[in-house]
Amino acid sequence: MKNTLIAATMTAAALGGAPANAQGIQVFPSGSSPSVIADPKNFSGQVVVDLLTPPSVETPASSGLVTFAPHARTAWHSHPAGQMLIVTAGKGWVQREGQARQEITSGDVVWIPAGIKHWHGPTDTNGMSHVAITYIQNGKNADWMELVTDQEYQAR
Amino acid sequence: MKNTLIAATMTAAALGGAPANAQGIQVFPSGSSPSVIADPKNFSGQVVVDLLTPPSVETPASSGLVTFAPHARTAWHSHPAGQMLIVTAGKGWVQREGQARQEITSGDVVWIPAGIKHWHGPTDTNGMSHVAITYIQNGKNADWMELVTDQEYQAR
Repeated sequence: MKNTLIAATMTAAALGGAPANAQGIQVFPSGSSPSVIADPKNFSGQVVVDLLTPPSVETPASSGLVTFAPHARTAWHSHPAGQMLIVTAGKGWVQREGQARQEITSGDVVWIPAGIKHWHGPTDTNGMSHVAITYIQNGKNADWMELVTDQEYQAR
Repeated sequence: MKNTLIAATMTAAALGGAPANAQGIQVFPSGSSPSVIADPKNFSGQVVVDLLTPPSVETPASSGLVTFAPHARTAWHSHPAGQMLIVTAGKGWVQREGQARQEITSGDVVWIPAGIKHWHGPTDTNGMSHVAITYIQNGKNADWMELVTDQEYQAR
């Protein structure tokens, strides 16, 4: 049994496949992946992203903890398969194009269905952190659009 | 325009469909759904589940915050499309059948691929809370099996 396992592991390694334990339960300790500064093409202001699972792990959604300084925000965007936000700290706004913004605060959960143009971010006085579970469809989890202007951000 | 919207809403309501705003961004304030005591067929000990989105909202995964008292645990089970756990408080164990248990603690993230028989729960001294994102395949997110015995739970 043990020899079979070793042989299988060696074969996978020889073929350039994932190590045998990548098929099992994987624990990612807090802080095991470095934080990433969010791409300024898709975010305004100071935004830090901590991926919850590394990109090498295939999952049906990408997942990250996103931390925004006050005034920061995403660009306008939509999701091909929807996104769930779990607000873990602070206070923020989420706005669908053409509608009033909604206030969100620690403990609130947001469901953004597929295909809805929107942005989210903290308020202008308080930062916000949220977990984002972003479902992937055909290898893509978001369609990014133009940045949110200061006027759009401040509009009620 | 307004009349068209009202007519559409009334038609949806008359047909028993979802209200028009169910198609938009939905915010679920913290505590807006009552906590549920976990089903003793599938869990041992004191376990409380807070659904993050109500069952009426269709999402590619079910998601809940699960809070275990010390010694509590899930039954043995597997997931048809995998599950991600985000440990939000306390300390726990996750064990794949036939392997040593692994310790998990606040901030850790666990990825459990499809089809792996396992259980998770807190340690025998500390409770644990985790967010569980459980992907749905063909309307199902888990295959539940036998309860974890005290002997299995205490085995290292």
